[in-house]
Amino acid sequence: MSRSNRRIILASRPVGIPQARHFELTTAELPALADGELLVENVYLSVDPAQRGYVNDEDNYAPPVAVGAVMRALAIGRVAESQHDAYPVGDYLYGWFGWQERCVCRPDAVLRRVDPRQASLSAAAGLLGINGLTAWMALHDIGRPRSGETVVISAAAGAVGALAGQLAHLAGCRVVAVVGSDDKGRRCVADYRYDAYLDYHQHIGDGLRRVCPEGVDVYFDNVGGDIADGVIRQMNRDGRVIQCGTISIPCWVPPPQGPRNEREILTRRLRMQGFVIFDHAARYDAVAAELAALAASGKLRCDEDIEQGLERAPQALVDVYAGRNTGKKLIQLPL
Amino acid sequence: MSRSNRRIILASRPVGIPQARHFELTTAELPALADGELLVENVYLSVDPAQRGYVNDEDNYAPPVAVGAVMRALAIGRVAESQHDAYPVGDYLYGWFGWQERCVCRPDAVLRRVDPRQASLSAAAGLLGINGLTAWMALHDIGRPRSGETVVISAAAGAVGALAGQLAHLAGCRVVAVVGSDDKGRRCVADYRYDAYLDYHQHIGDGLRRVCPEGVDVYFDNVGGDIADGVIRQMNRDGRVIQCGTISIPCWVPPPQGPRNEREILTRRLRMQGFVIFDHAARYDAVAAELAALAASGKLRCDEDIEQGLERAPQALVDVYAGRNTGKKLIQLPL
Repeated sequence: MSRSNRRIILASRPVGIPQARHFELTTAELPALADGELLVENVYLSVDPAQRGYVNDEDNYAPPVAVGAVMRALAIGRVAESQHDAYPVGDYLYGWFGWQERCVCRPDAVLRRVDPRQASLSAAAGLLGINGLTAWMALHDIGRPRSGETVVISAAAGAVGALAGQLAHLAGCRVVAVVGSDDKGRRCVADYRYDAYLDYHQHIGDGLRRVCPEGVDVYFDNVGGDIADGVIRQMNRDGRVIQCGTISIPCWVPPPQGPRNEREILTRRLRMQGFVIFDHAARYDAVAAELAALAASGKLRCDEDIEQGLERAPQALVDVYAGRNTGKKLIQLPL
Repeated sequence: MSRSNRRIILASRPVGIPQARHFELTTAELPALADGELLVENVYLSVDPAQRGYVNDEDNYAPPVAVGAVMRALAIGRVAESQHDAYPVGDYLYGWFGWQERCVCRPDAVLRRVDPRQASLSAAAGLLGINGLTAWMALHDIGRPRSGETVVISAAAGAVGALAGQLAHLAGCRVVAVVGSDDKGRRCVADYRYDAYLDYHQHIGDGLRRVCPEGVDVYFDNVGGDIADGVIRQMNRDGRVIQCGTISIPCWVPPPQGPRNEREILTRRLRMQGFVIFDHAARYDAVAAELAALAASGKLRCDEDIEQGLERAPQALVDVYAGRNTGKKLIQLPL
């Protein structure tokens, strides 16, 4: 087998949301495997809003990708060579394999083993990957939705939001989508079991009062910013805010300003909490099994937006930030 | 007994922090007691930062005091006449008796019965009143301090902060005071078991890095604003922020701006929660008993700053906002 490996590297460091020009397609030779290492051939590359945080030079939950290094990304791959007994050739894995054709790594790069009988291979990167796991754990751990409550979800048609909406519906809640277009809103109601939607180009406060006449009990926040400010001001006493993403804030340098929320948190007795899926590895398999069962029984739908070819990855990330994806964005590589 | 009653009424509605000119001392006749009513003679009037919220025309946890009405305030009083079997003459009570000499009310105005054997009468309004109850419940329920953690408390020498600092010390934490003067800081360390203090006129970030070299695990926030922004940016992963007060924000109209905290909440996995003592009435007596026992055994000190005479109440509130009190501010009335 050729040891030549095509990969997308970070060519320069973006401030804020990365653009296609910040990346470059290069080729490098794969090293020989050392003891304990694996060679993984990628099948699906994941494209995630969190990747902005991997390349910005800001404190985050992991150090930034170095300029010149392969772009950090989750992927589904197949073990092609192995120097580790626990990972035989032919096994499928979900892990930090990067935006590249193949990856030499150690087992600490693996998030989950993929069982192709549990669901489609691609589902392992979305429904059963960080998106589904985040939707389930953040909603239940922090949101604690109770039947009859109103749950508002921003980026409601996104890879996390679309699943969170369906899970909140299954919990017996009235679920309201905040989206950027009527088209996405209609999709939320038709496909993801939302009860209503609000286009955030409208006035959030007036719009929410109309679609949430009984106020908001849980806000699953994927966006932050003005939308979050508006939702928080419609929350009921003892409401919960899941801080899961900040995709509406293009750049954190210089620090963006907004209305102070201390008084809202105090007088409404809100509980606001940050959620990062990578803290919860011990529960991945259990929650993935639950998600797979819901999907198999037709109770949970997960749309995927799959493009072909490694070279498409940078633009796909730009498209995700612009909200142009219609489901979990993946890049499929030829096996 | 004369039915003439001196009282402080709200003379005009302040925007932001009330000043003495917003109040007026007037006299009115007390009505005769209806069935089920009590006449309470006030002994100590409470002066609390929360009273700003009672007079501002903003959404809050209670409707605002009407212009011309007696200023809403907690007080310790003695039942002087009773048309209710459960509240005999001579009993002491803690409740919403207002800034006035005497109050005709129903039992729903009562927060707690006062047992003069449990502690001094005045302690029932501070140590065993909303200040002590808030310090204990907010620290333990939301802060959940663990031995060895670092707890930062703002308004650290105030009626809540001074008690919260000692309770955090008793929980085995390193406790750091944020105060407005060296004098208060020294008092925090000498009297309230704080390990260190920081004057907020310094740069909060630099100062906290120096006095909290291992970061901050729990922030007991009584002030909001710039101080809170600075502390939040020094917090450790999984930190807890108790949103207990916002005394540093003079006015909420127009909405004050500040740096957005979404990213801090997310990447540090903070849990931020609002606390209002009036939600927890069912636990008042149990927690008060615990506080009284700590005080009786010398483990908890509560300073009081007592002035004489009803007419002093408005200026006393102004002084509390200016940080000129040295302990729980009370107004004593002649019995």
